[in-house]
Amino acid sequence: MQSAGPGQRYNPDVGRRRTVSFQGEKGAFSQVAVQQLLGPEVEVRPCQRFEEVFRALADGDVDAAVVPIENTLHGSVHENYDHLVNFELQIHAETNVRISHTLIACPGVPFRKLRRVFSHPVALNQCVTFFRENPQLERVPFYDTAGSVKMLMEEKPADAAAIASAIAADLYGAKTLKRGIEDDPSNFTRFFLLKRPGSRQTRTGEVQWKTSLVFQTRNVPGALFRCLSAFALRDISCTKIESRPLRGKPWEYWFYLDFLGRADDEIPQKALGHLSEMADFLRVLGTYPKAV
Amino acid sequence: MQSAGPGQRYNPDVGRRRTVSFQGEKGAFSQVAVQQLLGPEVEVRPCQRFEEVFRALADGDVDAAVVPIENTLHGSVHENYDHLVNFELQIHAETNVRISHTLIACPGVPFRKLRRVFSHPVALNQCVTFFRENPQLERVPFYDTAGSVKMLMEEKPADAAAIASAIAADLYGAKTLKRGIEDDPSNFTRFFLLKRPGSRQTRTGEVQWKTSLVFQTRNVPGALFRCLSAFALRDISCTKIESRPLRGKPWEYWFYLDFLGRADDEIPQKALGHLSEMADFLRVLGTYPKAV
Repeated sequence: MQSAGPGQRYNPDVGRRRTVSFQGEKGAFSQVAVQQLLGPEVEVRPCQRFEEVFRALADGDVDAAVVPIENTLHGSVHENYDHLVNFELQIHAETNVRISHTLIACPGVPFRKLRRVFSHPVALNQCVTFFRENPQLERVPFYDTAGSVKMLMEEKPADAAAIASAIAADLYGAKTLKRGIEDDPSNFTRFFLLKRPGSRQTRTGEVQWKTSLVFQTRNVPGALFRCLSAFALRDISCTKIESRPLRGKPWEYWFYLDFLGRADDEIPQKALGHLSEMADFLRVLGTYPKAV
Repeated sequence: MQSAGPGQRYNPDVGRRRTVSFQGEKGAFSQVAVQQLLGPEVEVRPCQRFEEVFRALADGDVDAAVVPIENTLHGSVHENYDHLVNFELQIHAETNVRISHTLIACPGVPFRKLRRVFSHPVALNQCVTFFRENPQLERVPFYDTAGSVKMLMEEKPADAAAIASAIAADLYGAKTLKRGIEDDPSNFTRFFLLKRPGSRQTRTGEVQWKTSLVFQTRNVPGALFRCLSAFALRDISCTKIESRPLRGKPWEYWFYLDFLGRADDEIPQKALGHLSEMADFLRVLGTYPKAV
């Protein structure tokens, strides 16, 4: 990473292009999140597994990482909460991506010639109405949404299309046949932008801030209530609270909590001090601007 | 369903075999849950989609339904919470199933001949260590874990296996080659057994009871805290609390909450009365014996 001299503010937008790791093939919905968070001008480092996404950032191989943290249908991605706790990285921003599915084929392949549609089974199952209306189309499961577009462009079948994000068509030079073929328009995934600890989080006046944290408490009756009092007694608004049982430790739970405010402001500081008295473990995962 | 005369207690274990709906092919992990909950002697009704599982029970086509509600890696299945609220069915029991993957082939196909392994991509991705140790094996994505065993037994390829639950091998007459090939032994899914409202929940002395509910509150600071006071002030132990943002209704949340106790006992009754004063919406989803 470009070094900044003493007293000189590091500007991440100057100098060489930043590289961002994410899970999936190029054109995955995680890359839609990358574009929403950082614009189209970043280098991307696709990884097979979430752990590699975190590792690449922790080891300094990339400048940032983008990971999904929860989905409106499928819930929180506990695996990524685990990595957030284990890798000690910082949440720098959040964004919500609407999971809108696009039917994509090779240039020159018209809709009426289609007989097969490749995609990840989860995406195929999110387009049931489209397949009901087009019974001539066979659903063919594939590893990855964007990966199925990549495969089409390599093998050029005359009767096949793929279901993926709209940007996958652009990235692989394929053609969009239909947009918005998903059944449920309210399917959103929330993503975090992660950086290494100590990364500057510029403070501007207009932004509303959010802080995410993980804490652990013994499951004695009222323990969570006492922990939440740290926020309620100070009129701090919690936007997420979720318990997760700890396997092998009966009666102990992790809690995921988001609140509105900055971890380094005076009143949240007092709330976090209060919470740390009540909780067995507390980790602030980051303070970042709330997504609009 | 067999009818019970006046004053005669309906015994679900007498008479014709009960039928249970679940999502997936025969041999899916949901069927492992069915066996844990009801034993091997029930008829099963596999369904393609979760909504059909609920619909079959609501319409009286089956006697019970089994659905996954949360997983230790992937979080809560919000879709099934939605169906629980919309269909007004009752949770009758819960069980935890360990997601252990088994390598299964047609009888007569030895491990050394294998070159391809079929399964759902999520299952394939949960066996990364196995594939790293066996680089001769190509991973082939398929719709369903148990469905890949069914397909093998129909097509009888000499070089292919499938990854599925151990019971899938028995159900399709296939052969188990290796057990426990999953990377993470702490991958558990919690399932609910559902029945229609008014189904008898036998009370026995020794059982610890659990109650699940959904409530909704305006996101004013401290609203959740006030709701939880209904339980905390009565020393009722909450074993799950989870917020879920309501799409299209900014600042409003659903909360999922489980507590130890029966909804019809005196002190929980008072807590639920107190909660209903604080919440905009409250639905008790069921009272059932806590899984051991």
